[in-house]
Amino acid sequence: MLELIKRIRSDGRNLGNGILKVDGFINHQVDPALMDACGRELALRFANVGATKVLTAEISGIAPALTTAQHLGLPVVYARKSKPITMPDTVFLTTAPSHTKGRMVDLIVSPEYLAGGEKILIIDDFLASGATIWGLVRLAQAAGATIVGIGTLIEKVFEGGRELLKPIGVPIESLAVIKSMEDDQIVFDE
Amino acid sequence: MLELIKRIRSDGRNLGNGILKVDGFINHQVDPALMDACGRELALRFANVGATKVLTAEISGIAPALTTAQHLGLPVVYARKSKPITMPDTVFLTTAPSHTKGRMVDLIVSPEYLAGGEKILIIDDFLASGATIWGLVRLAQAAGATIVGIGTLIEKVFEGGRELLKPIGVPIESLAVIKSMEDDQIVFDE
Repeated sequence: MLELIKRIRSDGRNLGNGILKVDGFINHQVDPALMDACGRELALRFANVGATKVLTAEISGIAPALTTAQHLGLPVVYARKSKPITMPDTVFLTTAPSHTKGRMVDLIVSPEYLAGGEKILIIDDFLASGATIWGLVRLAQAAGATIVGIGTLIEKVFEGGRELLKPIGVPIESLAVIKSMEDDQIVFDE
Repeated sequence: MLELIKRIRSDGRNLGNGILKVDGFINHQVDPALMDACGRELALRFANVGATKVLTAEISGIAPALTTAQHLGLPVVYARKSKPITMPDTVFLTTAPSHTKGRMVDLIVSPEYLAGGEKILIIDDFLASGATIWGLVRLAQAAGATIVGIGTLIEKVFEGGRELLKPIGVPIESLAVIKSMEDDQIVFDE
């Protein structure tokens, strides 16, 4: 998606070690118009997979998942990283390594909002190692739900997430695909 | 705002001790159409305050802040609760007690995205004790920015947040105002 690629080219920063800083428009400050355009595009790409719900992980998955869900006319559930007091005693919980935090984090979904028979479209900001998304897949499977698609804003192909997720056998779509980040460059697969 | 009040009446739950569960449409599962309507209404109420940026706190402030910012055509910044590796070494940080977590949490904003001279509209899901919003006010003031308005989805008047924030001297708007939650009731101020 050219609009997103252009924005990463102008405002993204390669911090080294595969870390892409997009804090100015996705991860800390958010550009709502860009996020809406990304949601519209993801909704278009997954228009025919029969999703009944969008699933994401807090925190930075919320914005793209919300706009995608809005364009698909679906509810969105975000997995929590800690269990709020409003959640029931018994929940679906899995742990996944966090790339940006350098530690394991919990991903928690209440069975109230993830049920058997649901067709789940997973949306997140990044597809890197795929560990967070794989955690969301496990949560959905624990609930007896079916994954029907995986969509992200930015994919770093050199971190292998797509290979990890391929066996699930669902469409995987990313709006900006980065082939390499060596030598301070950001090289897109266009 | 009648649409939100109706939804709280049908799907909200009074868990006692002033805890209102809205996990089915705001805090865990999100209804994007409702959130868009709330954002449109908040944007309307703050159309004339001259805001240049919307500020909120992760996690559950993100959805209403994003839709409000979208309707105002402004960027939105969400204060982080932990400092990601993409953030500069020196940041604005304050601590505030979290009602739902029962402990102090950090609120962190990068000086890259909160600058002197900005006119800040604060949006959050709840106005309860006002402690989180007061923390956001301190962050904005530390940056030399000016607060021009405070908007929330749900206000629990009996927790006193409005009195705490009143001295700031800006408009405070809430879309659903709850007067009392005694005896399993949810009594709105309509």
